[in-house]
Amino acid sequence: METLRWENGTLYFLDQTLLPHETRYLSLTDYRAVIEAIKRLAVRGAPAIGAAGAYAVVLAAVAAAREGREGFAARVRAAAAEIAQARPTAVNLRWAVARQLRVLDIAAGEEPEKVVARLVAEAARICAADAAANRAMGAYGAALLPPGARVLTHCNAGALATCGYGTALGVVRAAHAAGKIKMVYADETRPLLQGARLTVFELQQDGIPVTLITDGMAGYLMAKKGIDAVIVGADRIAANGDVANKIGTYSLAVLARHHGVPFYVAAPLSTIDAAASDGSAIPIEERDAAEVTSFAGVAVAPPGTRVWNPAFDVTPADLVSAIITEKGVFYPPYNFKDNQEVLPIG
Amino acid sequence: METLRWENGTLYFLDQTLLPHETRYLSLTDYRAVIEAIKRLAVRGAPAIGAAGAYAVVLAAVAAAREGREGFAARVRAAAAEIAQARPTAVNLRWAVARQLRVLDIAAGEEPEKVVARLVAEAARICAADAAANRAMGAYGAALLPPGARVLTHCNAGALATCGYGTALGVVRAAHAAGKIKMVYADETRPLLQGARLTVFELQQDGIPVTLITDGMAGYLMAKKGIDAVIVGADRIAANGDVANKIGTYSLAVLARHHGVPFYVAAPLSTIDAAASDGSAIPIEERDAAEVTSFAGVAVAPPGTRVWNPAFDVTPADLVSAIITEKGVFYPPYNFKDNQEVLPIG
Repeated sequence: METLRWENGTLYFLDQTLLPHETRYLSLTDYRAVIEAIKRLAVRGAPAIGAAGAYAVVLAAVAAAREGREGFAARVRAAAAEIAQARPTAVNLRWAVARQLRVLDIAAGEEPEKVVARLVAEAARICAADAAANRAMGAYGAALLPPGARVLTHCNAGALATCGYGTALGVVRAAHAAGKIKMVYADETRPLLQGARLTVFELQQDGIPVTLITDGMAGYLMAKKGIDAVIVGADRIAANGDVANKIGTYSLAVLARHHGVPFYVAAPLSTIDAAASDGSAIPIEERDAAEVTSFAGVAVAPPGTRVWNPAFDVTPADLVSAIITEKGVFYPPYNFKDNQEVLPIG
Repeated sequence: METLRWENGTLYFLDQTLLPHETRYLSLTDYRAVIEAIKRLAVRGAPAIGAAGAYAVVLAAVAAAREGREGFAARVRAAAAEIAQARPTAVNLRWAVARQLRVLDIAAGEEPEKVVARLVAEAARICAADAAANRAMGAYGAALLPPGARVLTHCNAGALATCGYGTALGVVRAAHAAGKIKMVYADETRPLLQGARLTVFELQQDGIPVTLITDGMAGYLMAKKGIDAVIVGADRIAANGDVANKIGTYSLAVLARHHGVPFYVAAPLSTIDAAASDGSAIPIEERDAAEVTSFAGVAVAPPGTRVWNPAFDVTPADLVSAIITEKGVFYPPYNFKDNQEVLPIG
């Protein structure tokens, strides 16, 4: 099952709002439709959003090319600015768009058709590199786990959140392949239930043992069942190692510290924002109240309920035991400012 | 709005599974129907379950009286044993049934009709005492809060969980009456959403400002918004002060400790089980997987999902800043074994 595929000028991706009940691919040829799909979380997960953004730039360039050579680059640039704004927290989106804009710079003066081909190739490279990075992360991360590991994860940092294999779930997959996984516990991850809908689904498909819990059970799970590691993905990592990830991650990090459980973040270097000195520089998206007041489409709270609905939270670096990347495992104190690998591109 | 009412031989109570969308009273005349209603959480909350159990004994006695004087007490006793088992964790149920059995003992030899009248009076006393206890707790607890308090609560420990006014929400009500409440944050409390469905509803009705969050937001809420106190109810408190309460409470207690936020438990003395030396002696109910995998008939997780669904957790006494009762505020170290007020009755 592919999260995202490019074929003959069309971007296909799995509508993740319909999982696990329905497997339907969206086929998009308009960059605005990609923005819309990103906003409504039909595609989600920081690396997958990055790849979708890169292809959205391609679609914008195809449309711009149709209007002729005159003003081509300016039209692509204007669309790219819109695409980069689709969601604020995951930095991979801005990073992937920046990579495409660099391609545009390098190809300045070429025929639009040729530029489009270059953009397609770059988007494919971003996607292939992401999948490869996840394999590398998997190997590095699996080595951190003991045999018979009981692992807790949050949201979905799996194949569905990336161009394949997954970040946190990539580590789980590699550890499972090495015979190390006894049980994965998946937080359901309210409000949008990515854990119940996507993580359980992905792990079931791969035959990896998984037990679903509600988010409020995590502390008691650590106290009663014993957990060997918490592993999560990230939407943006600041230069000092502060981690923005799905709301609920910070609570898990505090609970892990209280119980002496290692708290690992698995993320590609494209998730690191060297320009954000710490977590306070990361914008946190707040989403619609209806996500909280209804459950799976059914209203649960009374009409007029006031809601606070941040989609992400920030976990301070001092609660993060290690950050697992495709270039190896980083330990505190983190300093990604000096890491050339993670300097923003474009 | 009354949680529970006795009138002319019938026990009426609000079917809390239908709130906040529908206000429907069940009218029950068979003790087995009360057991069923307790099991499916149509009536819930430790003190309310206690009162419902006391009235269930009345209904059993009415039926037993119809079969004549011979074997009357034995029939009531057999039904009482069933009633006491309806749910395992909240000790108030066993406590209320034990109070009724003491009445039965004292009235041994009297006409069944007279015994029934005594049982009705005792059930009414239990209910009236509960409402009065909540008022007292409210006054004691409100004194602990600063002006402009931002309070976080979990599940529903309100009027709906008791015979009126509430335990944790009794404290909130008293503090609001004293002009001290700036905002109440309510955890939605998965899986059964008592926070979203019941706590928000109750506080809205009273015009007390309330903001709904998902359970996973509690940590980030403490870090970002600042919380002055966490206040929860209890289903059973051990002699050493360990507190069994709705699943998710323990996570809140750990988060509160990490953020230096006082963690208060409000509960009547009938919730204290002096015979349980610590939390390990408290049975924790595990409920059906479907509560987690679906809501309101809508499945969210894939078929065959493995689930862990403890309905309660145990918070160690050392995370509990104070226990607010109708006899005053207890501080650590707790020792309820020596407290004559809380010795089990009957």
